Amino acid sequence: MRIAVLGVGLIGGSIGLAAKRDVEGAEVVGFGRSPERLERARALGAIDVAAGSLAEALDGAAVCFCCAPVGALADQIAAALAVAPEDCVVTDVGSTKGEVVAACSDQRFVGGHPIAGAETAGVEHARADLFEDATWYLTPAAATSGVLYERLHRLLAAIGARPVAIDADSHDRLLATVSHLPHVLANALVTQAAGALGEEGAALPRVGPSFRDATRVAGANSAIWTDIYVANREAIAAEIDALAARLGEAAALLRAADPEAITAWNERAADARRRLLEADLAGGVVHELRTTVPNRPGIVAEVALALGKAGVNIVDMALAPAPDMLAGEITLWIAGDGPAGRARELIDALGFPVVEP
Amino acid sequence: MRIAVLGVGLIGGSIGLAAKRDVEGAEVVGFGRSPERLERARALGAIDVAAGSLAEALDGAAVCFCCAPVGALADQIAAALAVAPEDCVVTDVGSTKGEVVAACSDQRFVGGHPIAGAETAGVEHARADLFEDATWYLTPAAATSGVLYERLHRLLAAIGARPVAIDADSHDRLLATVSHLPHVLANALVTQAAGALGEEGAALPRVGPSFRDATRVAGANSAIWTDIYVANREAIAAEIDALAARLGEAAALLRAADPEAITAWNERAADARRRLLEADLAGGVVHELRTTVPNRPGIVAEVALALGKAGVNIVDMALAPAPDMLAGEITLWIAGDGPAGRARELIDALGFPVVEP
Repeated sequence: MRIAVLGVGLIGGSIGLAAKRDVEGAEVVGFGRSPERLERARALGAIDVAAGSLAEALDGAAVCFCCAPVGALADQIAAALAVAPEDCVVTDVGSTKGEVVAACSDQRFVGGHPIAGAETAGVEHARADLFEDATWYLTPAAATSGVLYERLHRLLAAIGARPVAIDADSHDRLLATVSHLPHVLANALVTQAAGALGEEGAALPRVGPSFRDATRVAGANSAIWTDIYVANREAIAAEIDALAARLGEAAALLRAADPEAITAWNERAADARRRLLEADLAGGVVHELRTTVPNRPGIVAEVALALGKAGVNIVDMALAPAPDMLAGEITLWIAGDGPAGRARELIDALGFPVVEP
Repeated sequence: MRIAVLGVGLIGGSIGLAAKRDVEGAEVVGFGRSPERLERARALGAIDVAAGSLAEALDGAAVCFCCAPVGALADQIAAALAVAPEDCVVTDVGSTKGEVVAACSDQRFVGGHPIAGAETAGVEHARADLFEDATWYLTPAAATSGVLYERLHRLLAAIGARPVAIDADSHDRLLATVSHLPHVLANALVTQAAGALGEEGAALPRVGPSFRDATRVAGANSAIWTDIYVANREAIAAEIDALAARLGEAAALLRAADPEAITAWNERAADARRRLLEADLAGGVVHELRTTVPNRPGIVAEVALALGKAGVNIVDMALAPAPDMLAGEITLWIAGDGPAGRARELIDALGFPVVEP
């Protein structure tokens, strides 16, 4: 399988290393603006071949990863699709998905976003195990080819990632909540503290661990974050507005000085934290589920999104078209009795009866 | 020196262990509501004697540490002062200082707040090195006796802490900024995320490190934090209001989608973070400064606060009254050429000429 990697930095390089380690017969072709950096990637074993042009990189490719910075992604994806073979799945690794997905309705395209290795740039930091057990969001759309989606899903699972289907807007809201908003807060907090301490005549305290933790990501790499802030501005701004309103309520709560109400508020936060941090510990026996679906566009995306939305992770999946090509069989592997049961119900509810062989 | 510790938990127990390790001739007397807990503290070596009453604990004491929870501190301090000897310095270890200091104008009282060991309760966790290199805020007032302030300062420096003088209101604003506000933010953020993820149909992501960091202190121990929130509510609410306004500006900035303005905002945060985190690395050669001051109440507090406000830490201090008792000599040890120079200027500016012997 020929895999094209456009932009061979930390993420692209790690994809190359992982594919070469985990996928039999993988040949990784790299392309990028800087011949020196490409050559470095080849010397490090992250790619097998440094292509001289985009067309050469895509020639005969089964999968193409677009790894440009967020601001340059839409153009890179369009350029890749223009020269990619008919049966090549093209994906990207950008941290926001709405704009990119809205700009592209090609059946070969699936938006993607691995939750790994945000900050350190450069192929020198690439590692074959970067995606080990990492969530890798995929945003299939109605137009997305089921066969190509399956190929990408299997490749990502093979290199150790956990692909999770999600629609692009939900993805952006989710990331705004759990990643972009904490960055904005860190910026606001650290700037406010610097101002306040300045006013106190530069009497700088040994700041506590809560402050250090909350501001660790303040002023994160602008080369990455300005693009993210611009691309996901609407979702982030909405999250900021909601949080500012929530903070106004907290200020009113404190001023009212009712210890019981303050304790209840604090305990709700303790509960929320427990739920959020425990939610990720799912696992268990892997169930195999099979269902027959009509062989029409969008069907795989529909099933994947229904499960992704319900928090059911697909460990692996396989598609097999029936001989008449009018119907196909989807096999899904789901970890845990609870999630497997939910998956059965959800797929049944879509009108496709499930069997567990 | 007899040292009374009222409330022998993590902080009180650590004071006892440290004093017994570092102060020659220290005898630590403990008192508290639970005889069992006192006995445990004695068995662990945190105190030498378990007193049967408050009066017994204070009998002959040179220093008294009040270690009740914030909500019970004002009463405990008043009770201690009612039975403490005339030349006993009484201090507390509460995380907010405004209310406690406003309620007490006794010349024997100095408010205190060690930045150490916030969460784990219980004398079982007490350690002799808990205050090693930890900032210990002191809030001397105009009424505070210079001799008693010096005794407390020396004792704290002896057990490894770095005493820093600050007025009570500045302390509370400072702590609101660097500790209480991050806790409020963590609560708001985790509650908002739990709501948002609930709406997305419980599709819980592997939350990123920025979210984990920012919410680590969410829902912190209500037994401690409700008291802090109530006691410091005005300063915290003011910080919240300021941050909410700042967040509103950030939302507007993002919506305007100007990459240069966003980058500039992010870089300001990076600068602020660098300054805040580097500011704490001061050190260097220790200078000895001497000055002669009129022997009147408040003079030590005046000098200590002037230096504390300018960010100059006093490593150690000593007072020596002149034989006529009308004037006294203060010797200060200051680390670093810069801080020592600033200290000279500041003390000169107060009208007291400084000599460096």
